Amino acid sequence: MTIAIQRLSTVDTDFSAKLKTLLAFEAAADDNIERTVAAILADVKTRGDAAVVDYSNRFDRLSAASMADLELSRDELEKALAGLPAERRAALEAAAGRVRAYHEMQRLDGWSYTEADGTLLGQMITPLDRVGLYVPGGKAAYPSSVLMNAIPAKVAGVKELIMVVPTPGGEHNQLVLAAACLAGVDRVFTIGGAQAVGALAYGTESVPQVDKIVGPGNAYVATAKRRVFGIVGIDMVAGPSEILVVSDGTGNPDWVAMDLFSQAEHDELAQSILICTDAAFIERVQASIEKLLPTMPRQEVIRTSLSNRGAFILVRDMDEAIAIANRVAPEHLELALDNPDPWVEKIHHAGAIFIGHYTSESLGDYCAGPNHVLPTSGSARFSSPLGVYDFQKRTSLIKVSPAGAQTLGRIASTLAHGEGLPAHAKSAEFRLAD
Amino acid sequence: MTIAIQRLSTVDTDFSAKLKTLLAFEAAADDNIERTVAAILADVKTRGDAAVVDYSNRFDRLSAASMADLELSRDELEKALAGLPAERRAALEAAAGRVRAYHEMQRLDGWSYTEADGTLLGQMITPLDRVGLYVPGGKAAYPSSVLMNAIPAKVAGVKELIMVVPTPGGEHNQLVLAAACLAGVDRVFTIGGAQAVGALAYGTESVPQVDKIVGPGNAYVATAKRRVFGIVGIDMVAGPSEILVVSDGTGNPDWVAMDLFSQAEHDELAQSILICTDAAFIERVQASIEKLLPTMPRQEVIRTSLSNRGAFILVRDMDEAIAIANRVAPEHLELALDNPDPWVEKIHHAGAIFIGHYTSESLGDYCAGPNHVLPTSGSARFSSPLGVYDFQKRTSLIKVSPAGAQTLGRIASTLAHGEGLPAHAKSAEFRLAD
Repeated sequence: MTIAIQRLSTVDTDFSAKLKTLLAFEAAADDNIERTVAAILADVKTRGDAAVVDYSNRFDRLSAASMADLELSRDELEKALAGLPAERRAALEAAAGRVRAYHEMQRLDGWSYTEADGTLLGQMITPLDRVGLYVPGGKAAYPSSVLMNAIPAKVAGVKELIMVVPTPGGEHNQLVLAAACLAGVDRVFTIGGAQAVGALAYGTESVPQVDKIVGPGNAYVATAKRRVFGIVGIDMVAGPSEILVVSDGTGNPDWVAMDLFSQAEHDELAQSILICTDAAFIERVQASIEKLLPTMPRQEVIRTSLSNRGAFILVRDMDEAIAIANRVAPEHLELALDNPDPWVEKIHHAGAIFIGHYTSESLGDYCAGPNHVLPTSGSARFSSPLGVYDFQKRTSLIKVSPAGAQTLGRIASTLAHGEGLPAHAKSAEFRLAD
Repeated sequence: MTIAIQRLSTVDTDFSAKLKTLLAFEAAADDNIERTVAAILADVKTRGDAAVVDYSNRFDRLSAASMADLELSRDELEKALAGLPAERRAALEAAAGRVRAYHEMQRLDGWSYTEADGTLLGQMITPLDRVGLYVPGGKAAYPSSVLMNAIPAKVAGVKELIMVVPTPGGEHNQLVLAAACLAGVDRVFTIGGAQAVGALAYGTESVPQVDKIVGPGNAYVATAKRRVFGIVGIDMVAGPSEILVVSDGTGNPDWVAMDLFSQAEHDELAQSILICTDAAFIERVQASIEKLLPTMPRQEVIRTSLSNRGAFILVRDMDEAIAIANRVAPEHLELALDNPDPWVEKIHHAGAIFIGHYTSESLGDYCAGPNHVLPTSGSARFSSPLGVYDFQKRTSLIKVSPAGAQTLGRIASTLAHGEGLPAHAKSAEFRLAD
């Protein structure tokens, strides 16, 4: 019944190296997947609908005659929503409402200013025209992910949001379709894999070309997204999910244990780490894990994840704990502390911070309001949660007055000559009134 | 002496297909470059400094004994700045000041709100810790690019900005070093190519690992950046530069011709397009081109670019012109109109808009204030100019009150059960006071 979870301590002489090993994760590049995806994308680009129908029939065991068989009507989405049990529908609606309210705060606004000589400078904000949302089929199809990807796009003002979701064996996930309905998805195609990514990126006779593709997927989908990046925008390619709980020994060890489980139950590669200033509390969490694990339906996944990638890290004090958290730059950071507030601003790198004992990560996953699509594998060092800003873009505005052109023209001319670009210089000089 | 520039008109029956062909540009994937870059990156990752020194000696014809020979001191940067001719230094300082002032407006601020039950939700903004700036060597080394990449990073609060710039044959570009000095670059290594990208992405004994790499480079650099994306952040990989001038026949045809030249002189692949409502004005611009081209030092590059990729597009009215501009989503859009203001907000996709006759693109390239690193090849449909926001990131803040945990816990539990994630449900349920 015992479960061995790796123990690290900052007093270990090789702590830094051990931590590095613990965090190491590199998605293996797979040449076979690369080749398969390249071939599918090229085929979809050339043959359009016909290729997408072929691959969908083959990979998802369907018998579609044309793309028309692979599009769902608005009516089917409405039916899925109407068919939900009342409690589930209420929960989904409450979650959607809260997610929408939070994301409304993220909308970017344009600005401009006018200088003394009449020159105007500014920044204009516009939404993307059309976005593709990839939703995985089968067991990884999460209605909450539909809400988290679709709502920010709609809040941003995206005119057309096109969802693709494979239906292996023809099975539709009603909760996913209900979420799509609630979130305002405009069209749904029951296609998946690299062929769906190709259809969205290049456009086909039936599937309109989009400007950006978001949403999680398997290795084929991730590879396809990387390959079409540049033709369309993409979101981050996510790694395994992780949680880092920082504890000072206050709070309930059962709660901490279950929070570690909630990450570990996602899949065997998920990573759950507890950093604690209190050795005795680590033992209590270990005991809670032993006690609670047998009650969990997904105990085998949890056990594998915790044994292979989980860890307890004992630290001397909270400053050390925070320094390690910043080094890890975790996707989810729980500050399981009685007095968490002073520590929040010391965190420089994290996808989301769950502050205080009552803020379990799961509340954030579903309904607190912030997005659950967060930077993984330390990429919080340089990237942000998915947000409305991912569906808006900026355009610089420059309106130089005749007077401004005199000042700026001289500067530009000097610098252009310095760079050996005489037409740039001349173009500025033409505007000089001599 | 005549130069044949492609003519399109919206009255052509095949206009849409012709426009598509005109805009088509796909960077050829080159397997040799991919293999070479993969090998260099792997070697730098394994051998660190030694590998970087080897490649630098080989590719840049140097004889460095160690990385110490490939780092420039702050003193050398100061000397480069002090050594500039007074006019050039003044121009560089004026440009830097204006770029800084504009970018100060872009800084993101955090926010939060507290709900009735005491639950706090928000978004915290933090700068990246360390950024790498790639600057090409040789003829494409532009001091203005150093300002445009470095200043937003510094305005964002990036603590350490590390520049890499190859010095083929050991030759230092003094204007580039002076710009680095002015912009506040912290360290400079005279290394380039895939080896420099690898050093920044993985870190070596001498080169610290960065969180993001920005800046332009050749095909090897672009390939290397794509490959390290995920380990570090990268900026957009830029395609050839383009300008789209929208004219209603007002203004000076010489000015328009020179603005088209200023784009075309960058390289043979650059694209200059004029959209005009007035057929007679197009002829006047053609005449200006014939007249002015022989006076240009870079006339061969300009001629090739205009002949191969340039175009004049005749449209029926301004609405058509704007619709085409939105379809092109140009990097640079000039509204060469007497009354441009009403048209600005009808533009949905452009990197930067240069408004009115006095706003030549070259003023924006150097010193108006906005960034000259802009989305190319139609990617303004989904991305933005380089900005301070590229060096800042967001962290979601969630602090659920004990009362809030009751409401949110029930919603989360219902949805988690719906998704088959019982530990998520339990973790929410543990916070319920029953």
